[in-house]
Amino acid sequence: MARDAERRRARQGAGTRVAGRGTAGLKQLPWRRLESPYQPLEVLSPEQVEMISDAAFQILEEVGMDFLHPEALEILAESGAEVEPGSARVRFDRGLVKQALASAPAQFTLHARNPEHDLPIGGRHVAFGSVASAPNASDLDGGRRPGNQRDYQNFLRLTQAFNIVHFVAGYPVEPVDLHPATRHLDCLRDCLALTDKAFHAYALGRTRILDALEIVRLGFGLTESELADAPRLFTIVNTSSPLRLDGPMIEGVIEMARRNQVVAVTPFTLSGAMSPATLAGALTQQHAEAMAGLAFAQMVNPGAPVIYGGFTSNVDMKSGAPAFGTPEYTRAAIAGGQLARDLGVPYRSSNANAANCVDGQAAYESQMSIWGALMGQANFIMHGAGWLEGGLCASFEKFVLDAEMLQMMSEVMTPLEVSEASIGLDAIREVGPGGHFFGAAHTLERYESAFYSPMLSDWRNFETWQEAGSETATQRANRVYKQVLADFTPPPLDPAIREAVDDFVLRRTAEGGAEAA
Amino acid sequence: MARDAERRRARQGAGTRVAGRGTAGLKQLPWRRLESPYQPLEVLSPEQVEMISDAAFQILEEVGMDFLHPEALEILAESGAEVEPGSARVRFDRGLVKQALASAPAQFTLHARNPEHDLPIGGRHVAFGSVASAPNASDLDGGRRPGNQRDYQNFLRLTQAFNIVHFVAGYPVEPVDLHPATRHLDCLRDCLALTDKAFHAYALGRTRILDALEIVRLGFGLTESELADAPRLFTIVNTSSPLRLDGPMIEGVIEMARRNQVVAVTPFTLSGAMSPATLAGALTQQHAEAMAGLAFAQMVNPGAPVIYGGFTSNVDMKSGAPAFGTPEYTRAAIAGGQLARDLGVPYRSSNANAANCVDGQAAYESQMSIWGALMGQANFIMHGAGWLEGGLCASFEKFVLDAEMLQMMSEVMTPLEVSEASIGLDAIREVGPGGHFFGAAHTLERYESAFYSPMLSDWRNFETWQEAGSETATQRANRVYKQVLADFTPPPLDPAIREAVDDFVLRRTAEGGAEAA
Repeated sequence: MARDAERRRARQGAGTRVAGRGTAGLKQLPWRRLESPYQPLEVLSPEQVEMISDAAFQILEEVGMDFLHPEALEILAESGAEVEPGSARVRFDRGLVKQALASAPAQFTLHARNPEHDLPIGGRHVAFGSVASAPNASDLDGGRRPGNQRDYQNFLRLTQAFNIVHFVAGYPVEPVDLHPATRHLDCLRDCLALTDKAFHAYALGRTRILDALEIVRLGFGLTESELADAPRLFTIVNTSSPLRLDGPMIEGVIEMARRNQVVAVTPFTLSGAMSPATLAGALTQQHAEAMAGLAFAQMVNPGAPVIYGGFTSNVDMKSGAPAFGTPEYTRAAIAGGQLARDLGVPYRSSNANAANCVDGQAAYESQMSIWGALMGQANFIMHGAGWLEGGLCASFEKFVLDAEMLQMMSEVMTPLEVSEASIGLDAIREVGPGGHFFGAAHTLERYESAFYSPMLSDWRNFETWQEAGSETATQRANRVYKQVLADFTPPPLDPAIREAVDDFVLRRTAEGGAEAA
Repeated sequence: MARDAERRRARQGAGTRVAGRGTAGLKQLPWRRLESPYQPLEVLSPEQVEMISDAAFQILEEVGMDFLHPEALEILAESGAEVEPGSARVRFDRGLVKQALASAPAQFTLHARNPEHDLPIGGRHVAFGSVASAPNASDLDGGRRPGNQRDYQNFLRLTQAFNIVHFVAGYPVEPVDLHPATRHLDCLRDCLALTDKAFHAYALGRTRILDALEIVRLGFGLTESELADAPRLFTIVNTSSPLRLDGPMIEGVIEMARRNQVVAVTPFTLSGAMSPATLAGALTQQHAEAMAGLAFAQMVNPGAPVIYGGFTSNVDMKSGAPAFGTPEYTRAAIAGGQLARDLGVPYRSSNANAANCVDGQAAYESQMSIWGALMGQANFIMHGAGWLEGGLCASFEKFVLDAEMLQMMSEVMTPLEVSEASIGLDAIREVGPGGHFFGAAHTLERYESAFYSPMLSDWRNFETWQEAGSETATQRANRVYKQVLADFTPPPLDPAIREAVDDFVLRRTAEGGAEAA
């Protein structure tokens, strides 16, 4: 492991310790791994956690869950789960689930191509990812359009450029102009070439996952046997709630877990649609589905790194439309952390909202999501920057707005320094009643770095702001994102590695890529 | 007290139990007193609280604070504080401060003209106020303009109409078209006539406070001796940081505390300008100034209801411009709660931001402030709805946006119901793997009230939203606020009381009102 990190570091060359390389015009915080100093908030009493846990076990024992893949049914049966003959229905004794989950690590490191960007996942650690999986992209100039490769690559560049975005959470936008059979090859090559941060592979069947693992192996310069040494790739596995896990997802779990790569199981429990119209019911079902998926990963390979995903939100009961960043969403995000910690595994949440444009609603729903995630002590925050419209659109302006909000939260997580020097009694004595601190030595010493300096927020007075054109935060974000792209230079990549990856992608493309998932 | 409430209730007539009266078009949550179920967040360790407390005492002992009023110096000297001869400088022994603060109540009720709107202040209770004291008003139609009576009255109407706004925090906007000598008379009469919620009087000298108390006495139908029975008026006393309390403010403290009315002492410790350029230093100075002011109020009248105000934020070190809703602000809001609880008194915070228009920045800075306030367990939240531009503007659209955010937070504070019925195992059994919950009996029973229903957020899909005109949250807020005003009918007021108040205002106006403060 240490050797691997050293090799990777050497490969990056001398320039890589400068975080935010190629973002000359952007005044941002340096790359930093985050750790929360706060006690997680508790929206559930210990008794309520116990009630939900007990009910979730009851679901797994009595109702069971469908695993739509014969290999999964074999593994589950061998591990002691009760597979209903001639059916995909699997029931789990709670003892069996607990035993399987006991092997899941409480914390692990997700490695990136650049070891500076390795991420500890678990405990009080917090990492933010980019937006992922949006079918559309938008900005103020071009409006909303179906995802394409150019937008896809530009979002990767932003993900690389903004230090507060710690990992690539998936395809920020789905490049539908690329053929579905080979899209994963082009996209993953871009992840390696345009970023040096940790990234994601979609669990859309065995072939795509194996291709992704090979690209990681080549990209990290590893031998076959070294690949399973450490987590270097992650996949988000969504259950088809209620209580079903589809075949392509199952193949992802199996191939990833076998090689010690990260599986995050996230039930899609929209309360009122795919789960009961109560938070208690939705959380119970989320817990049952997550436990079943995580236990399955441990049955595939005890000790494989896993993440408990919470995504419970509610629908608008009048229209059935999904809503995010709602009070229910926020409480579910906090409760989800309690349930994940009850199992002793890292916790995933999101920065979600249902706004149709980058306005006040987009900001306040996102804040509700981010605070829910952080107060719930989420370790792994998907869709951190750029998500709009309940995930149907990746917005370039929202990316910048989110990056600002995440930077602010990273500062909220910075422990407060209280010391004789920081209190500055001498300065208070010196200034005295009725004075001011602008010119005090205590102030001048701290002038440069005393406070958070924003990338996007405009604190000028109204008149100056108006004279300068009365730009909204969204209009400013538009300028910022275009400047960052203009300044972008990709992170260094060993030419031999680039060639090996390119060769692989060419060969697999010539072979026709992957089957439809 | 109980008799007083009964009388007030009788006076309101039959209609007053219907909350949100005169807001037919607005679908909002019912009036509700809020209580947080959460353990307050701690940004300071117990040792850090102790260090700040100790340093704050040192300031009061060694540097002291200026009290710019002879009557205050007399009271302070009589109470044992050390008044520097021939000067306004007062030094306090820490034992004296602790002894004075020991008589401050940990909780009290702030009464409103309508007893349904009485507010418990302290403990885990939370109350939100309107915007206060902005010199300008704005909306999308009329743009930004100096405050005037029409806008002032309209903000009072919104404050009355929105159930989530619990009290009138001051003049939402300063009506500069009213003569300064009599402005307080017109404004306070409007507070009584257009709202039946608790309200504020400015501590701008003795005369204005005494006029306000008389309007309260007449408005509540009390005798002179009954006025001091219970808290029915509050005043915000800002120190002139660093370490100074001005004469008009001091007169406010004296007259209010003497009559058991509420004094909230809020140091204006902008870090880097009026306090050291460190959070530790700013909080220490805030604590010193607040303790001195609160102790003084207790020396005037032991047991008088007081509130510890936290308003520490930072300036932009490049321009000196004040910033709000920053990471520093949020951490200071949380820390302030710890310091207030260390003294055992209720805690005041704010919903602040420095945005120049109702955009994403306005929303995210406000969210940072609101979360800071609630995680810090603030009891009394000033500027809850409508604040913009660091307090230089009251915005009608921001009022609605804030009301939506506050409603959402009130739902986040609603304890989660976990029971056999709410978990709904039978529904999960009935629906089973692969089904959906839209038609389940468990869902249909909860259809109407399952989830928070927004006033402002738009959850329609992009296409529908676009066809309907692509309105931003700010544009929708504009429609909402105008509809609420169109629907508004003032709360009932006994004609005899109205006449008595009008007579008083007429008489005092004829007398020339108050001196310049």
